Amino acid sequence: MSEKMQRIALASRPVGAPVHENFSLETGPVPVPGEDEVVVRVHYMSLDPYMRGRMDDAKSYAAPVPIGGTMEAGGVGEVIASNSPAFKPGDFAFGMFGWTTHGCQPAKMLRKVDPALAPLTTTLGVLGMPGFTGWHGLNAYGRPQSGETLVVAAATGPVGSMVGQLARLAGLRAVGIAGGADKCALATDTFGFDACLDHRAYATAADLRNALSAECPDGIDIYFENVGGKVLEAVIPLMNNFGRIPVCGMISWYNAGNLGAGATDELPGPFLWRNILVKFLSVNGFIISNHWDQYPQFLGEVGPKLASGEIRYLEDIAEGLENAPAAFMGLLQGRNVGKQVVKLI
Amino acid sequence: MSEKMQRIALASRPVGAPVHENFSLETGPVPVPGEDEVVVRVHYMSLDPYMRGRMDDAKSYAAPVPIGGTMEAGGVGEVIASNSPAFKPGDFAFGMFGWTTHGCQPAKMLRKVDPALAPLTTTLGVLGMPGFTGWHGLNAYGRPQSGETLVVAAATGPVGSMVGQLARLAGLRAVGIAGGADKCALATDTFGFDACLDHRAYATAADLRNALSAECPDGIDIYFENVGGKVLEAVIPLMNNFGRIPVCGMISWYNAGNLGAGATDELPGPFLWRNILVKFLSVNGFIISNHWDQYPQFLGEVGPKLASGEIRYLEDIAEGLENAPAAFMGLLQGRNVGKQVVKLI
Repeated sequence: MSEKMQRIALASRPVGAPVHENFSLETGPVPVPGEDEVVVRVHYMSLDPYMRGRMDDAKSYAAPVPIGGTMEAGGVGEVIASNSPAFKPGDFAFGMFGWTTHGCQPAKMLRKVDPALAPLTTTLGVLGMPGFTGWHGLNAYGRPQSGETLVVAAATGPVGSMVGQLARLAGLRAVGIAGGADKCALATDTFGFDACLDHRAYATAADLRNALSAECPDGIDIYFENVGGKVLEAVIPLMNNFGRIPVCGMISWYNAGNLGAGATDELPGPFLWRNILVKFLSVNGFIISNHWDQYPQFLGEVGPKLASGEIRYLEDIAEGLENAPAAFMGLLQGRNVGKQVVKLI
Repeated sequence: MSEKMQRIALASRPVGAPVHENFSLETGPVPVPGEDEVVVRVHYMSLDPYMRGRMDDAKSYAAPVPIGGTMEAGGVGEVIASNSPAFKPGDFAFGMFGWTTHGCQPAKMLRKVDPALAPLTTTLGVLGMPGFTGWHGLNAYGRPQSGETLVVAAATGPVGSMVGQLARLAGLRAVGIAGGADKCALATDTFGFDACLDHRAYATAADLRNALSAECPDGIDIYFENVGGKVLEAVIPLMNNFGRIPVCGMISWYNAGNLGAGATDELPGPFLWRNILVKFLSVNGFIISNHWDQYPQFLGEVGPKLASGEIRYLEDIAEGLENAPAAFMGLLQGRNVGKQVVKLI
């Protein structure tokens, strides 16, 4: 019996939080590579908050996934067929294969991965898109200076934990925000944050702000924005003059209700704009896919720190493509601990 | 009879738009200089939108003016007494004297002005704080590139007209927004804007956006923000990827109702934040007083362009200190044409 390809398609667009009915498991033949194309048996695929945006039919970074189309994702696996001199069977490669057991891509869209350097999964997390996002956002837009204070939410996630650890290594005070006492303990014990606040323990932005203010006695110089909502509302009045806000996501606004009850969708624009003005803030939106030219520099800097143990990481590994939707829904609710990946083989 | 000093004090804090009762005209002795101090007979004082913020007891750039305190303003005039070797009677100087006929300041707070180089009033406008604000904001945060499109409101004001003219000289398409057909004609005829829209002709942000879209066929790369409100709401969805927004003011939010009916105080924060993220925008708040170190460079670049006629300017000159409150209220309503100054002598 020949091998089949399985993929997960977008069956319908979610209203609010995604539900199982928004996804469908499809089976088909394993793709055959065209000219210059490479077929990869995916070992691990990544789940990331940005995928929620692709499920909506609204303007975002990129075109939405069409109904019936394969959900978008990065993955890493072994080349099983190649019509390109750049890859041969047995090589390992990263690519945007989607939620699928087998991917077929032009060779130029793939990045070769050395499985001897680090576990394959790190290609999706600490050494992949999320870790690179944290590194680039912090350095390019955060411009950290020793002695300053940084705040980042989703502190045990693959972006937040990279940001916090790099900030600490650069001599900053790093204050995390995470969902639950267990994650806060991870943030301080595993990732070395100076402090971490459980956003679930604070009903309103004002309550969270009071707690943050106590942990940031010199104010906040860098707020690495990946959540929006209640955390943003709490942080903005605590920003110091000339503060910087790299903006790479706003998960609390992707699904109504995520990040807790206090996340107000009514945060007034003038409140944000006035603070930007009177505190001379620098706010920069970015997506890491515009900056892959800097990836070698990232790998050169962070790879050795990973090997030496200066940078640590956590992964949450679900098993089987059929469990990807449940793992994704859990991710949007903050149920994962560390970088969420799905093991496919 | 010896000369008296007149000054205008803040009598009470305004609720919404300022009214005459918020100001009081006070008379006192002409100040006597202390050690290293200089007394200046003010010839012209400046009126600027930022002064509205100083009337409120709320956190802004700077401390509010106390009740009974002299309203804040820059001014230019002749030195009449000096205890500093840096200034002698007959010299001309710029300083933050306030709404007053006579100012007394430490010498190090004053900047010497050569009245032979350009009319004294230019020290308050095109070659002063507003012109410098436009130059610095455009270059430092707008990062203009030939072929791009810039939008700026208050296009005939001293900031907007500088921004538009510099943008045109740098090879950009410059689209202005102003209040009334007369000002729009000035923007295109006097200041060379490629187009100018009358915000009063559009009841809602959506209407204004449609008109802007037609005038910006390639989208908007730089929005120089000095008004907020309806204009901001109209512009944001038209911003191109990697767009830049220098933020130096938001006059429409200083007084409820200014810049017309469509200025919604309810502009949602998530709307702004999402656009910053998905379009990779760079938003920078600034106040020019943090950047005086660059003033000589500004003067070196713009001074010759003023002399050659490449940069033009308009001034609206009120007469007499007692008329400053009315001129200021008019400024907040957009009744001035060009840089608003008050002639005191």
